[in-house]
Amino acid sequence: MVVLGIDPGYAIVGYGGIEYYNNKYHTLGFGAILTTPEQSFDLRLEIIYREMCEILDKCKPDVLAIEKLYFQNNQKTAIDVAQARGVILLSARLKGVPIFEYTPLEVKTAVTGYGRAKKEQVMEMTKRLLKLQKMPKLDDTADALAIAICHTQANGTPLKNFWTGGIA
Amino acid sequence: MVVLGIDPGYAIVGYGGIEYYNNKYHTLGFGAILTTPEQSFDLRLEIIYREMCEILDKCKPDVLAIEKLYFQNNQKTAIDVAQARGVILLSARLKGVPIFEYTPLEVKTAVTGYGRAKKEQVMEMTKRLLKLQKMPKLDDTADALAIAICHTQANGTPLKNFWTGGIA
Repeated sequence: MVVLGIDPGYAIVGYGGIEYYNNKYHTLGFGAILTTPEQSFDLRLEIIYREMCEILDKCKPDVLAIEKLYFQNNQKTAIDVAQARGVILLSARLKGVPIFEYTPLEVKTAVTGYGRAKKEQVMEMTKRLLKLQKMPKLDDTADALAIAICHTQANGTPLKNFWTGGIA
Repeated sequence: MVVLGIDPGYAIVGYGGIEYYNNKYHTLGFGAILTTPEQSFDLRLEIIYREMCEILDKCKPDVLAIEKLYFQNNQKTAIDVAQARGVILLSARLKGVPIFEYTPLEVKTAVTGYGRAKKEQVMEMTKRLLKLQKMPKLDDTADALAIAICHTQANGTPLKNFWTGGIA
């Protein structure tokens, strides 16, 4: 199974593609889509959309695993992250890739077996499971890899009513 | 000038296309994109995206005018509206249509001259300016027409840094 993990955002979209087979992991690739405040917001959405389409074409995932959005104190940031996340979901949908969502708690629990695990513990387990020499510099990319691992360990919460329409 | 007004949402996206020339309005068309809770969220986003592309192709607007998102008590609804709005912005961006945003206060003020105008007053002025026999049944469609009128009356707040890139 090939899983593309996504840590959504509008300035940084972390991504990581992994293959999981016979209880073993193989890292296909990882990185981040970056946009800047100098770019108009609609241009940022376009960049995210086009790069997501390229990544999906290269990675050819069986599943896209993405972090659920949760309440944030900064309403403006939350709205803009959600707008970017909508574009990310659309790119997967148009490529026919099923989408699964996970909360940060689910990711921690799936990767370390412990819901209150610290960030460093999640990173350490991610590094060990994927046999990486070192973790990616950007937290967002590291998080995306952890989200991808989470999908292989968890049963997964499909996007509401995902199975409607007879996809099996 | 042809303006496509949009009242964003994920269950209902109101839209209204108007032409403004020599201080006169001509209504080109209006309606709503509808999705249902039985559809998966990513399918809803796909429907909104595809119908937006069709509407943009038919209406050929010079400008897309859309309501700004503001704080809502229901965080879940706000996030989902924002995800759908991201897809709407993307559709306009990919069609090369400039995007302008307005707050409900700006819409009220532009249409009625009075920021504290009641909903009925905004609807009455919209109906009068567009010479409609009666207003559309859906509030979201009526709001979209008011947002389009707003753009013709206001100077407009372009999406942040919209003019970057030398569009004139």
